[in-house]
Amino acid sequence: MQDIRDYIESQRNAFEDDLCHLLAIPSVSADSKHRSDVRRAAEWVATRFRELGLQSEIVNTSGQPLVLAESPDVPGAPTVLVYGHYDVQPPDPLSEWITPPFEPTRRDGNIYARGSTDDKGQFLTHVFSTQAWLATRRSLPLKLKFLIEGEEEVGSQGVNEFLEDPASRRRLACDVAVISDTCQFAAGQPAITYGLRGIAYFELRLSGPRQDLHSGTFGGGVTNPANALCKMLSSLIDGQGRIQVPGFYDNVLALSDRERQQFAALPFDERDFMGQIGVEGLSGEASYSTLERRWARPTFDINGIWSGYQGEGAKTVLPARATAKFSFRLVPNQDPHKVAASLATHLRSVCPPGIQMELIDMHGATGVVVPLDSPYMAAASRAIESGFGKAPVYIREGGSIPIVTRFKTSLGVDTLLLGWGLNDDNAHSPNEKFCLADFHRGIQASARLWAELAECKV
Amino acid sequence: MQDIRDYIESQRNAFEDDLCHLLAIPSVSADSKHRSDVRRAAEWVATRFRELGLQSEIVNTSGQPLVLAESPDVPGAPTVLVYGHYDVQPPDPLSEWITPPFEPTRRDGNIYARGSTDDKGQFLTHVFSTQAWLATRRSLPLKLKFLIEGEEEVGSQGVNEFLEDPASRRRLACDVAVISDTCQFAAGQPAITYGLRGIAYFELRLSGPRQDLHSGTFGGGVTNPANALCKMLSSLIDGQGRIQVPGFYDNVLALSDRERQQFAALPFDERDFMGQIGVEGLSGEASYSTLERRWARPTFDINGIWSGYQGEGAKTVLPARATAKFSFRLVPNQDPHKVAASLATHLRSVCPPGIQMELIDMHGATGVVVPLDSPYMAAASRAIESGFGKAPVYIREGGSIPIVTRFKTSLGVDTLLLGWGLNDDNAHSPNEKFCLADFHRGIQASARLWAELAECKV
Repeated sequence: MQDIRDYIESQRNAFEDDLCHLLAIPSVSADSKHRSDVRRAAEWVATRFRELGLQSEIVNTSGQPLVLAESPDVPGAPTVLVYGHYDVQPPDPLSEWITPPFEPTRRDGNIYARGSTDDKGQFLTHVFSTQAWLATRRSLPLKLKFLIEGEEEVGSQGVNEFLEDPASRRRLACDVAVISDTCQFAAGQPAITYGLRGIAYFELRLSGPRQDLHSGTFGGGVTNPANALCKMLSSLIDGQGRIQVPGFYDNVLALSDRERQQFAALPFDERDFMGQIGVEGLSGEASYSTLERRWARPTFDINGIWSGYQGEGAKTVLPARATAKFSFRLVPNQDPHKVAASLATHLRSVCPPGIQMELIDMHGATGVVVPLDSPYMAAASRAIESGFGKAPVYIREGGSIPIVTRFKTSLGVDTLLLGWGLNDDNAHSPNEKFCLADFHRGIQASARLWAELAECKV
Repeated sequence: MQDIRDYIESQRNAFEDDLCHLLAIPSVSADSKHRSDVRRAAEWVATRFRELGLQSEIVNTSGQPLVLAESPDVPGAPTVLVYGHYDVQPPDPLSEWITPPFEPTRRDGNIYARGSTDDKGQFLTHVFSTQAWLATRRSLPLKLKFLIEGEEEVGSQGVNEFLEDPASRRRLACDVAVISDTCQFAAGQPAITYGLRGIAYFELRLSGPRQDLHSGTFGGGVTNPANALCKMLSSLIDGQGRIQVPGFYDNVLALSDRERQQFAALPFDERDFMGQIGVEGLSGEASYSTLERRWARPTFDINGIWSGYQGEGAKTVLPARATAKFSFRLVPNQDPHKVAASLATHLRSVCPPGIQMELIDMHGATGVVVPLDSPYMAAASRAIESGFGKAPVYIREGGSIPIVTRFKTSLGVDTLLLGWGLNDDNAHSPNEKFCLADFHRGIQASARLWAELAECKV
């Protein structure tokens, strides 16, 4: 495969420039004022596929469009579905970015931009590896299908609707799926992620008096929605980090002793980790290590909260309203619908007099673990060793990629989670970045992956 | 006094127009960008006094200026200090105002504007009653001193500094103080307020990781400042509305049985009250009635809280910071400094690992009760009955007027709290208003007050 390797080396600058073009499009799916930007990103991706000579189509959904593409059939070789997403998280707080989020900037061997690692930079490695095969060999050793969506950051409604349709499922039929939207274990230590957490995301809106009141004249007599919100949210978790929603832990897949041993054997230094994120201590569910808590235990996190006066000085107001966004990370076998139902019952039971509550179930997904002993997993391990010069370790990750569960239930396939990112890439944070060396190693690993997977019996 | 009554009647439109001029100045003391507007309001008030022929001066402080004025000595008659404030609360949320906060608008017998009832409309009644005496009788029956400040809504630092100086205290020496910055008991039922709550106002700033993190990758492993803030604030009050800061209730002045009976005898309808503010239930400290909780029991209210993502959609972020503004209303004998010290110790004890906390003590004041059996109180009762056509009831109020305690400790005098406002005037809220009939009745009552107080032995 030296010809393909050489081609990829020769295109370093061109690949980086192409990546920058896509990163410059502010395709923020959570914000309706970026709707046309999201569309523009979809069109950019579809155009890219057509330039490679692949069949490509933009499929409109009730939300953001899907980009589909596929290469010709290769009899006897497996069909691989590559999934990625061209939408990105909102970039705020904008003031904390060193360079603007949608002006991609090369610095210290990284490319800085919103979406650089999550997921534009990562999914493009598979597009560019395909380009390398087609440019040097004129064909691929297996059949590739691409599904690149635009609502991953807001719940993937469009792709879920698409997968409801049997014709769509036939169209995406495959033997295994590949996603690069996770992290390596550490810089210089690639990994294959075999487990992901699910999520159940909510917004809780409390309203009390018709309008803001004077906290002197009314305080003590009237239920304060901000007080109520803090109490209600605090009731969801105890001082030991155990979630208090009734039945929450009923179906939690426990960590096996072997997994706990494997996690403990990984070169994870808690002091380094604290230094990296800038804290002097950690906390979470009692009796679990930091890696266990991040990868394989459910959590409760407030993602946003607001009420009352946020300006300068002291305003003695009893706010009329209080709102929070919060989410539970789920582990395999927990059902987000059951969590939502139990949560709603619990919150209603603790909502005090004089407060109206509205609980919005924003999106949910189950957690997943994929088998470690498949031939596809072995093929992926060899490809990564070839691209990165080091064999991967097997890890789990705390984030949620609901589509992995969806592929299992809708298409009957497992997913290879081959992450080229790093934990300090600032995904979802200011100054998101992607290591350019990993970008190029990812393209090499992907090109090798097509060869390795082509050898798997179907 | 028919001549004075007639003069006040004849000036209705002129007094209202004058009030509108002052209300149009956005003298928001909490917001430094309104600094020049605050100054402009002070100058407007000082000019008004000079036009009446009173000696007047603007005294600069470390904060906003004080306006002082006084009338000539009247041997044998008491000296009365009239206090008011020309600063106002911030007007937000602006979108909820029917007419803009600084475009005074007459509607349904009320004048709508920020500051209309709190306190521009109320203190001006004493200025206009003075004008009435001077226009009809050329002199007052007693000596009046005016102290109109511009930082009442943010802690009155300037006036407190001024009162530190013995020369200032001699300048303000008096027999009794008068403040109109409270409410009648209800429309048609005037009241004298003999008790006020104090306040201890804080801002709590928590910081965790250096920047916002992905709640999937990091959630469960890293302490979430928003979770911590809700837990810490919730630890300040139990499910029965009892504040949990150690020692908080140690010196609380209990309600006497007689007070509880008096409060219970007032025509207060809880259903009407709930309808007025738009809630379907009330809550607060167990075992106390709504009036008791609002007037004579300490409280804990979150005045503002913010952290993380407040935009549209779902952002899976673990916020780097979380902040709240909150305050305790205090009752007589509670010391805001002791509350602040105990609070700081308590919060530090419940602050979880990985969180840095900063507690800012923004301002404090003690609560107060004034004696009901003084000749000044009887004089005020007669004046109100004359101006409003009905004898006042004696009530307490939940708000804080720290200057009342300050006058007692610095000048050795009690204060008559003669409120012309109504509880539904929306002080500190959108659509603040003042009933124009009460404005004119207040001017009449004030004019009579100077005559009644002049009869008190000194």
